[in-house]
Amino acid sequence: MTLREKTYRQFFARSDASERLSGANRIMVIVIIAAVTLTILSTEAAFRTVHRTTFILVEFAFGVIFTVEYVARVWAIAEEAGEHSVLARRLRFMASPMALLDLFVVLATLSPFFVSDAAMLRLVRLLRLAALAKFGRFSRALQELGRALAERRYELFVTMALALMLLLFGATALYWAERDVQPGAFGSIPRALWWAIITLTTVGYGDVSPITPVGKFLASIVALGGIGLVAMPTGIMASAFSEAMQRRRDAAAVQGNGPQV
Amino acid sequence: MTLREKTYRQFFARSDASERLSGANRIMVIVIIAAVTLTILSTEAAFRTVHRTTFILVEFAFGVIFTVEYVARVWAIAEEAGEHSVLARRLRFMASPMALLDLFVVLATLSPFFVSDAAMLRLVRLLRLAALAKFGRFSRALQELGRALAERRYELFVTMALALMLLLFGATALYWAERDVQPGAFGSIPRALWWAIITLTTVGYGDVSPITPVGKFLASIVALGGIGLVAMPTGIMASAFSEAMQRRRDAAAVQGNGPQV
Amino acid sequence: MTLREKTYRQFFARSDASERLSGANRIMVIVIIAAVTLTILSTEAAFRTVHRTTFILVEFAFGVIFTVEYVARVWAIAEEAGEHSVLARRLRFMASPMALLDLFVVLATLSPFFVSDAAMLRLVRLLRLAALAKFGRFSRALQELGRALAERRYELFVTMALALMLLLFGATALYWAERDVQPGAFGSIPRALWWAIITLTTVGYGDVSPITPVGKFLASIVALGGIGLVAMPTGIMASAFSEAMQRRRDAAAVQGNGPQV
Amino acid sequence: MTLREKTYRQFFARSDASERLSGANRIMVIVIIAAVTLTILSTEAAFRTVHRTTFILVEFAFGVIFTVEYVARVWAIAEEAGEHSVLARRLRFMASPMALLDLFVVLATLSPFFVSDAAMLRLVRLLRLAALAKFGRFSRALQELGRALAERRYELFVTMALALMLLLFGATALYWAERDVQPGAFGSIPRALWWAIITLTTVGYGDVSPITPVGKFLASIVALGGIGLVAMPTGIMASAFSEAMQRRRDAAAVQGNGPQV
Repeated sequence: MTLREKTYRQFFARSDASERLSGANRIMVIVIIAAVTLTILSTEAAFRTVHRTTFILVEFAFGVIFTVEYVARVWAIAEEAGEHSVLARRLRFMASPMALLDLFVVLATLSPFFVSDAAMLRLVRLLRLAALAKFGRFSRALQELGRALAERRYELFVTMALALMLLLFGATALYWAERDVQPGAFGSIPRALWWAIITLTTVGYGDVSPITPVGKFLASIVALGGIGLVAMPTGIMASAFSEAMQRRRDAAAVQGNGPQV
Repeated sequence: MTLREKTYRQFFARSDASERLSGANRIMVIVIIAAVTLTILSTEAAFRTVHRTTFILVEFAFGVIFTVEYVARVWAIAEEAGEHSVLARRLRFMASPMALLDLFVVLATLSPFFVSDAAMLRLVRLLRLAALAKFGRFSRALQELGRALAERRYELFVTMALALMLLLFGATALYWAERDVQPGAFGSIPRALWWAIITLTTVGYGDVSPITPVGKFLASIVALGGIGLVAMPTGIMASAFSEAMQRRRDAAAVQGNGPQV
Repeated sequence: MTLREKTYRQFFARSDASERLSGANRIMVIVIIAAVTLTILSTEAAFRTVHRTTFILVEFAFGVIFTVEYVARVWAIAEEAGEHSVLARRLRFMASPMALLDLFVVLATLSPFFVSDAAMLRLVRLLRLAALAKFGRFSRALQELGRALAERRYELFVTMALALMLLLFGATALYWAERDVQPGAFGSIPRALWWAIITLTTVGYGDVSPITPVGKFLASIVALGGIGLVAMPTGIMASAFSEAMQRRRDAAAVQGNGPQV
Repeated sequence: MTLREKTYRQFFARSDASERLSGANRIMVIVIIAAVTLTILSTEAAFRTVHRTTFILVEFAFGVIFTVEYVARVWAIAEEAGEHSVLARRLRFMASPMALLDLFVVLATLSPFFVSDAAMLRLVRLLRLAALAKFGRFSRALQELGRALAERRYELFVTMALALMLLLFGATALYWAERDVQPGAFGSIPRALWWAIITLTTVGYGDVSPITPVGKFLASIVALGGIGLVAMPTGIMASAFSEAMQRRRDAAAVQGNGPQV
């Protein structure tokens, strides 16, 4: 096997029996996680100013790694089966969303001098992580999850519509009860919607809350009656997910050990 | 088919095989959602004052649409099967709750000069949206949900009674422990009930919370022991809903593809 | 049937086929709910001072009703089957917990002049409501719930022990991280426990929360990892309850309509 | 049976038919719980200064008990089956993690004069409690729970990865929207992560919350969409636990009463 063949396998291999990421892709996962962590830390002034030189050096190292990876991919794509010329294959690959994302990551990493807010750009690397999830075991699990959600799209739609109506109803009730006393927090329905969302998700910051007896009475009723409704779409998604995983496990059990149920 | 026949089908058709809303009703759903959104935004002074003219014009347009729809319905109802005269059918339709709601929406949209708080009136349009849910797929799903809830009315009653008792017990405990230190927040059982509801739904604004050691101890016990109890009625409703949807899906599978289970 | 027989049936009847409360007991449920509501409202100074005379009169009326009920019960108990003399039966009834509770309610209602805090005493009426739950359909449901909980006492014990350990662990971690900066809120483990309970039940008042980076980091880990653990005992209770209700419904279906499953 | 044999059985017995803790181990559980409680209370200055002498005496008593227990264990281990000499067995036991933990507890209890913060050291006793859980019924339940979690390690990994991505996404969105207005709370992504964690676990202290309209809009979307995702790993753990307990109960039913299912 030539080096180019090996490189191609490492970066583009998919659907092998073991369903595991190739060595090169695993290293890239670790590099990307490290790069994302560094980007997150670099937004904190306390870190940035103290370790300024370290940050620049490590970012430069990441830039080199991403560049090497990009070049290696463009070089190795020539191994792809197909009737087009090597150049045509390379150009087509370079125009694909994944390669454009790669290129964007390289540019974002290497150009902190051109853009004022490089940190935000660099978080695009997270998308690279998601793109890598396309390979290996993740891929099938996410597909199955997607199918399970699609199957329940109707429940999701009905419960979300009911939850939205409840949010709107609660916001209107509190707008009516509190707008004169707290015009800042309840002076319009959009403002009251902030209260309704923070209350019915049970987050409850306390930055806005009713203070009149009527407002507290209405808020009590909305809270007692509505929390379950707002929690329903997320509950449906959670059960869809666990069902999809169960189905996958059952299928694996059948394949691996012969029929069991 | 005459135009009147077509109009009748568009506005009143029900239970066709596809279980989908007719074209006219779909347009009305979009118009109502747009109108409700506009009403919500119009309560915010920041929007209202800047886009004053736009608001008036768009509201006028909505008024025209709702008027045309109302007139079209009254006109097309003549197609309804029945032995009464056309006038009798029209009058009976105009006296029906749905037509009265339509009329109310038309008047509320067109008369911002007569009432001081037109915004609240206009939210009645949300009810129109609910009325449209009577048609199409929503209808059967909501009926089934209602049946599932009715079947469990007993569990709901028992858990709600227990939850209410717990709320009352918690409020009394904190009233006893904190009323001298915080007369504003815990000076009476109704006031302490506000604390109990906001705590046991886990909203926890923090506008009222115990400050004495005894109060904190009692609140800890009430919180640890009671949150599950208050969440139970909503849990029962959620499982009733998901069961109803499952039953519907099973029935559809049987009808569509022959018996499967 | 003599009046005394009828009275006996009304007040003491149990386990009749319909499983419904007798007329007299239903009236007492309503009276007790009204009396409890009045007591709750009477703790609020705003109501108490304005409707002072009304409160006294209605409380007096409740006192009369409770007295009449007590006397009627003592009188009617003579109908009870048994070999003892009527006087012996009456004395034994008067010494029973339920009759003592009745007497206590009568005294609490009629003696606001002897005790400074009659409101708290009067809430004992809630226990009367619980005592009435002994009759009719409630009774069997609560028994079954009790059995379901007893069956899972082991899960409940394990999860509660784990949850308590987690609360203690979280409190110790935050005590260690924040005690120097916030001695008032985290200056001892019992104080930090208040934070741990309010956080892990997701109530989150915000009266105490970590402010140091280390404290926030530890609190994040405790919150992300621990919320599910603290919610588990309540989840187990909820599922035990819904299972008990399902079993009851299945049994009713079998009894009422012949075997179905 | 000699005294040493009895002592050995009491302290080291495992897996007897009844699956219950031996008498000595039960007493130690109670002593450890009492000692932990005392340690917790002793961190509170209000208790410590008032009951100073009591605390010292009781801690001394606990020290004596733990010392006696340690000596008794070292003495009784000679009964263990094996070919080594008694001394070798004792030394090997003293080098085992459990005996070292015992020794550490003894030293921590008896040496408040050497260390400044004895309270933290003494909490190590909690680990002793966990070590005792190795005996009796707890042991098998915890093993089964561990197996259930291991079986679902894949779901846990996927949901945790998704939840972490969502937390990061939410934090970045709010960092972008609020960093200029609230540099203290949202001035970097790590700071915004504190907000994201406290919001998506629905704790919601309210120490940090968005104040700009854009920030509130983004926070609403993150809260409505993301709470279910963050709750999923804990939900999976909870269902794994309840499934493991169910399996155990079924197995017990089969063993105890013959096959039932």
